[in-house]
Amino acid sequence: MANTQGYAAQSATSPLEHFAFDRRQPRPDDVSIEILYCGVCHSDLHFARNDWGNGTWPVVPGHEIIGRVTAVGPEVSKFKEGQIVGVGCMVDSCEHCSACESGLEQYCLEGMTPTYGGPDRVDGTITQGGYSTQVVVKERFVVNVPDSLDFTTSAPVLCAGITTYSPLKHYGVKEGHKVGVIGMGGLGHMGVKLALAMGAEVTLFTRSENKIEEAKRHGVHHVVVSTDDSQMESYAGYFDYLLDTVPVQHDLNPYLQLLKFDGIHILVGLIEPIEPPLNAANLVTSRKVVAGSLIGGMPETQEVLDFCAEHNIGCDVEVITIDQINEAWERMQKGDVKYRFVIDMKKSFPDVA
Amino acid sequence: MANTQGYAAQSATSPLEHFAFDRRQPRPDDVSIEILYCGVCHSDLHFARNDWGNGTWPVVPGHEIIGRVTAVGPEVSKFKEGQIVGVGCMVDSCEHCSACESGLEQYCLEGMTPTYGGPDRVDGTITQGGYSTQVVVKERFVVNVPDSLDFTTSAPVLCAGITTYSPLKHYGVKEGHKVGVIGMGGLGHMGVKLALAMGAEVTLFTRSENKIEEAKRHGVHHVVVSTDDSQMESYAGYFDYLLDTVPVQHDLNPYLQLLKFDGIHILVGLIEPIEPPLNAANLVTSRKVVAGSLIGGMPETQEVLDFCAEHNIGCDVEVITIDQINEAWERMQKGDVKYRFVIDMKKSFPDVA
Repeated sequence: MANTQGYAAQSATSPLEHFAFDRRQPRPDDVSIEILYCGVCHSDLHFARNDWGNGTWPVVPGHEIIGRVTAVGPEVSKFKEGQIVGVGCMVDSCEHCSACESGLEQYCLEGMTPTYGGPDRVDGTITQGGYSTQVVVKERFVVNVPDSLDFTTSAPVLCAGITTYSPLKHYGVKEGHKVGVIGMGGLGHMGVKLALAMGAEVTLFTRSENKIEEAKRHGVHHVVVSTDDSQMESYAGYFDYLLDTVPVQHDLNPYLQLLKFDGIHILVGLIEPIEPPLNAANLVTSRKVVAGSLIGGMPETQEVLDFCAEHNIGCDVEVITIDQINEAWERMQKGDVKYRFVIDMKKSFPDVA
Repeated sequence: MANTQGYAAQSATSPLEHFAFDRRQPRPDDVSIEILYCGVCHSDLHFARNDWGNGTWPVVPGHEIIGRVTAVGPEVSKFKEGQIVGVGCMVDSCEHCSACESGLEQYCLEGMTPTYGGPDRVDGTITQGGYSTQVVVKERFVVNVPDSLDFTTSAPVLCAGITTYSPLKHYGVKEGHKVGVIGMGGLGHMGVKLALAMGAEVTLFTRSENKIEEAKRHGVHHVVVSTDDSQMESYAGYFDYLLDTVPVQHDLNPYLQLLKFDGIHILVGLIEPIEPPLNAANLVTSRKVVAGSLIGGMPETQEVLDFCAEHNIGCDVEVITIDQINEAWERMQKGDVKYRFVIDMKKSFPDVA
């Protein structure tokens, strides 16, 4: 009998359905993890639906994993049985290139191994993600979950949290900085919370007037309805940083006008051609910068969990069982979730010991 | 009789012709300068021809000025009569905004006053540039020309030099860095010389095979013919910085592939929409950056002249008299100059005392 129960898509057009499969036998540097919760990221759907053209099937999605250690290999030193741990978007990398040596495994020059849908570096089997009862992961790619953190609200920190934390940290956001967060979905609402905890003055940009109250409840200092030109223009030259979480094409030029000279527009959601085209004059005439950032390295992934524990930050979540996953994906596509679905794996598979 | 002789365009379609006009009476913080040499920048032509839609006429172009101080106002402390000085692309700014306070007058929040074609901040008259016998400039916007510098080869440092020096300095280029310079015109050949003097390994990107020998003569370590895909691809992930001096639309995406993770593509020539569109995935997946930079502030403008003196760097120039300016502009448009025309003003106006 297969050692792992999960939900998988069998093709780009199939719904997710029950799928039993075998995790690998643990290697000496592996941590075996019983999965307790797994967040539901929009990337899960993009990958399974082949929106990026790199799909593999069957695919068990999920890369916002919180679980309990059930066993560790003889070379594992940082983790022990019973410990609560997290696994994010990657489970391996070359570990010897300049990126890996800098703790930036997500930029591994040989390509990091994604948590699902990529070939294992040792045996070539395709990795499978966290919509499942257990996972086996190399120690370097496992992080400790501080005791004070809530398991459900912390699961999305492994992707939505680190994706927004990493660039804010890299670019040195601190008290007194003026940070604009563009979009308030899974990434955006974590960006708001993290930037506030770093001491920044935070402004949310949203197209929906109905997100104004919600954003203020999160503590943002200002809300700008981005479709209102006069509201936009009133912030000309105001921001040190813009954290742009919008995953679809949009005009960056009006936002560049809102940056101070030397301001930085950070893309964490967009992976398409920038259209309408970026006007180079907006960069040249004020030494502005457009930058991109992808999740975060393993040291920073530990750091963001510790930071969330210190500042009592969690993701706003709606907990589901795995039989609700297809409906959850439909609602996620409509933006009908505040702000992340998280699968309760023990309730989903009550018969698994 | 007018106190200044020069050459001006009377409209967007007129050739440059002799033009006599009056410089203002010096103010207490002004330096009066007898112009010895003035470089010929492509911007001079763009402005006079109204290519950017902001032309004013009559316009006396020229913002790469080397001259001798003939008088100083009572509040001037840094300069004295007889001293050799330089004036670059700007002659005033608000002096109190955060940019000015940081010595980045080119990014003045109230807008810097250009050397030609902008309203004087005191009397509202339109500034006129260096294709002329003398100029009166506020002390802050005058720089010292070190004794060891050649006057002709130093004139273009005031624009082409500072434009390439400023971003290399700002982004911390130093020994061991791998810097690609895209394009070898006026800006590019100065970028090559400055990056080499900073200790970088320098690669020139050019579309013209006939620039290979020329580039090697300047000491570049490698030349890549950018139209040759296999040459381009052999440098994938190689560069820390790309200094992009190309002033017309071009595809940035193949260049972004040549940057290391965290690499920076710096635009100093382009002020148009970036087309073909920049692919955001090229930024996000390796934390790469596209940045812009405009000339340099006054402290850095002094610094680049001192740096050129220390490292014995000058622009390659072809010296002309001002009656040759219309022909020089035609040749400049065809790229037929290595690499800057410089007007000898004393020879141009031999009858002016």
